Amino acid sequence: MNFLRRIVKPQNKEDENFYYELKELLNFKPIKLSFYKKAFTHRSLKLVDSSGNPINYERLEFLGDAILGTVIASYLFKKVPEGDEGYLTQMRSKVVSREHLNDLGKDLELIKFVKSNISKEHISNNIHGNIFEALIGAIYLDRGYNYCHQFIYEQVIMPYVDIERLEGKISSYKGFVIEWCQKKKKKYKFESYEDSGNQNKKHFSVRVSIDGNIIAKGRATSKKKAEEIAAKRVYYAMQNQMLTS
Amino acid sequence: MNFLRRIVKPQNKEDENFYYELKELLNFKPIKLSFYKKAFTHRSLKLVDSSGNPINYERLEFLGDAILGTVIASYLFKKVPEGDEGYLTQMRSKVVSREHLNDLGKDLELIKFVKSNISKEHISNNIHGNIFEALIGAIYLDRGYNYCHQFIYEQVIMPYVDIERLEGKISSYKGFVIEWCQKKKKKYKFESYEDSGNQNKKHFSVRVSIDGNIIAKGRATSKKKAEEIAAKRVYYAMQNQMLTS
Repeated sequence: MNFLRRIVKPQNKEDENFYYELKELLNFKPIKLSFYKKAFTHRSLKLVDSSGNPINYERLEFLGDAILGTVIASYLFKKVPEGDEGYLTQMRSKVVSREHLNDLGKDLELIKFVKSNISKEHISNNIHGNIFEALIGAIYLDRGYNYCHQFIYEQVIMPYVDIERLEGKISSYKGFVIEWCQKKKKKYKFESYEDSGNQNKKHFSVRVSIDGNIIAKGRATSKKKAEEIAAKRVYYAMQNQMLTS
Repeated sequence: MNFLRRIVKPQNKEDENFYYELKELLNFKPIKLSFYKKAFTHRSLKLVDSSGNPINYERLEFLGDAILGTVIASYLFKKVPEGDEGYLTQMRSKVVSREHLNDLGKDLELIKFVKSNISKEHISNNIHGNIFEALIGAIYLDRGYNYCHQFIYEQVIMPYVDIERLEGKISSYKGFVIEWCQKKKKKYKFESYEDSGNQNKKHFSVRVSIDGNIIAKGRATSKKKAEEIAAKRVYYAMQNQMLTS
């Protein structure tokens, strides 16, 4: 165990910080940091390895794109047994659309890891989705497919991917919860409070109560997102019939 | 162990035959035969499960297509470290082209497993590639990603996928070997013999000798393919400098 710890122990202070931030993001221990460093390296740095091959995230993005497609395909396949291949293809396109991937990359705040010669404001907005895919490629090389699967499920699909909304059935969970409470003559409350935690960026937490009982909480980088995450949890609690109507 | 054996033991003679043929094809033990049966069921049979969802290969094909894309992406990523994402994307398109997948499906003789209400001659030629992808989907559900990876590497990439040829560098390995021998003033011989083995379809085996030493063998459903497989092995032996020039 001590032996293993020595192997994975980062070599300097910068690596140590990177290691711990990555670990928090991934929810598991990264082993070979160089894969993740590459995933966050922009081509503008013009780095090359000893064979003259460029060191940047672009090849990893190709790899991660494929893996993400597989994990989402497998998720949809199992979640929607009645969906035919046309439905599955269409839903996957929505989940992995450039716009959606950029949102996911932003939600995960990946940009803070990026090393580039161009200032971050001048890099294309697609950087968020691109490094999100590259990160998945790095996880694959470092820990294999099952870790990618776990990361995408836990850190991406569960909090951020929303089949009902992508299907257009529900456009806002907050709206859905409010409408339901009004119909059932129940009192609801969305309470939000700023919560910086130990992260650089400001976070918001939201509690949803119905008839005085806290039903769910949500946390995100904006009040609106935190409300949606909390309301989505209320929605699932309803689905699970944990709320009596 | 006996307990496990009881679980996986097929229930009747037809299932038993299917199990052993599958095992030979996959090079590992399948567990849940129903996944594989679905992978070989054509929609023309109009089968449905207890929830009314169709039983045919089409959803599995969607899943397998994604997994195949990932395994090929990972193979190319590692095999060609100097290839940029444009090269990788282009090479993958060639490997997973409809035409190439149909060839792979034919090489694996998957059509013999297909159940359909339409006679096999009247089904579209794409059936070969489609059920090849569906089979990969079935492996994923039955045994997980790593088994798909192993199957695609051992049974598909190694014998049939040929980067040099797809890149257009080598159009025929047999031609390459002959040219090399003529240049080096060596005697070469391609010997072929029919070899039915214990399979239904006729197979051909080919031996390649250089200066009287057998260098490699190949086996396939046509003499030409068996020669190419054998010649490709000679080519790799040359690459590995096992042949003195």
